[in-house]
Amino acid sequence: MRYELYYWPSIQGRGEFIRLVLEDAGADYVDAARDGKRGMAAMMRFMESRSIEHPPFAPPFLKAGKLVIAQTANILFYLGPRLDRVAKSETSRLWAHQLQLTIADWVSEVHDTHHPIASNLYYEDQKTGAKWRAADFRANRLPKFCDYFEHILKRNSKGGDYLLGNKLSYVDLSLFQMIEGLRYAFPQTMARLEPQYPRVLALHDRVMARPRIAAYLSSPRRLAFNEQGIFRHYPELEEE
Amino acid sequence: MRYELYYWPSIQGRGEFIRLVLEDAGADYVDAARDGKRGMAAMMRFMESRSIEHPPFAPPFLKAGKLVIAQTANILFYLGPRLDRVAKSETSRLWAHQLQLTIADWVSEVHDTHHPIASNLYYEDQKTGAKWRAADFRANRLPKFCDYFEHILKRNSKGGDYLLGNKLSYVDLSLFQMIEGLRYAFPQTMARLEPQYPRVLALHDRVMARPRIAAYLSSPRRLAFNEQGIFRHYPELEEE
Repeated sequence: MRYELYYWPSIQGRGEFIRLVLEDAGADYVDAARDGKRGMAAMMRFMESRSIEHPPFAPPFLKAGKLVIAQTANILFYLGPRLDRVAKSETSRLWAHQLQLTIADWVSEVHDTHHPIASNLYYEDQKTGAKWRAADFRANRLPKFCDYFEHILKRNSKGGDYLLGNKLSYVDLSLFQMIEGLRYAFPQTMARLEPQYPRVLALHDRVMARPRIAAYLSSPRRLAFNEQGIFRHYPELEEE
Repeated sequence: MRYELYYWPSIQGRGEFIRLVLEDAGADYVDAARDGKRGMAAMMRFMESRSIEHPPFAPPFLKAGKLVIAQTANILFYLGPRLDRVAKSETSRLWAHQLQLTIADWVSEVHDTHHPIASNLYYEDQKTGAKWRAADFRANRLPKFCDYFEHILKRNSKGGDYLLGNKLSYVDLSLFQMIEGLRYAFPQTMARLEPQYPRVLALHDRVMARPRIAAYLSSPRRLAFNEQGIFRHYPELEEE
């Protein structure tokens, strides 16, 4: 099965969580909207189609044979067992999904540090709000999310170094991406906080050392972080 | 199976999406944290427990036998087929879940109209940002979400008056709740917009007329909307 991923071609954004699992599994996929003008046109046709059965509200979405699935966490829920990146039992799948939805909330909060007022206004037009929101994020929300995932790794009753136990799941890949993005957006804050989260960081490093992930990260398929994506580096949103 | 729902006892909030499906299905459940001081203490114990296998990041969460499941959309994904409020096929479940996650995004955006800067600050301390964000929500986001769901109902190729076709699913109950909440929070905006969304409103009325839902809505189990919940009515956030 060749999967077709549709996402904005110039940013990592939410699509990156899906790219990472496809890459780690060595899946056969195309990043359709990055395939030149034609790809982007195909994505827009999907978005605007009046006839498609299950239309997405927004990218990313995945075409898998006749299925079209949207919502990042939903796509990962679908791909997880097919790519052997989550155990097949319902309990494991629900728990992985619960963690992934918590990451989705975290991602939205990161986005809102630079866009607290409106997604369709420029950052420059909501800078005052952004400073306040970023300050609260750095002081309260970021440590709260990190604490949570550190604690999951610590209390893992089955042992093992991954969020779900002994075996890597797609949620580990997503947590890796969170740390990468947060280091890009808030390097000083992360440098200060990281010593408190040794398990999360060890997991990050373990993911980064996986051969397929390492190959992906050094390939042109990995886009650089930039100020159009979810994780943006604006020095004025960082701590003093 | 007696389900135990854990959620803040004084607001509809995200818990209401789960209450509605339990009520509509006539399920055996307790709204545990509303069971006096003891219930609230039990919820906090869950939240703070260092030993629970799959700890929730935040309420709501559901106890179903030995399972503890968090994240509203995840709980509904679990309950849907068990309460016969979604078809059992994977395609139906993924599509229902995709719609539910879109509603979850919508709920977060409603929350942020009154809390654009920080959840742990008072509304009064972020009123200026709230006015801007609410204006954008009313002008752009609210119509975008309503358009989307109106369109889903319109293009339903299988016919039928529900989001998934001929049979009510938990997503219909959630869409009903969105309309209820939005009418409470933004009555003028909704009065102006509603004529554009006849199918969404017909669905809302159909849900409200269901005997168990009607009984629930007029029972003391249905909390009133208030200014501690997700949907809040602040006249200054409404249109002129």
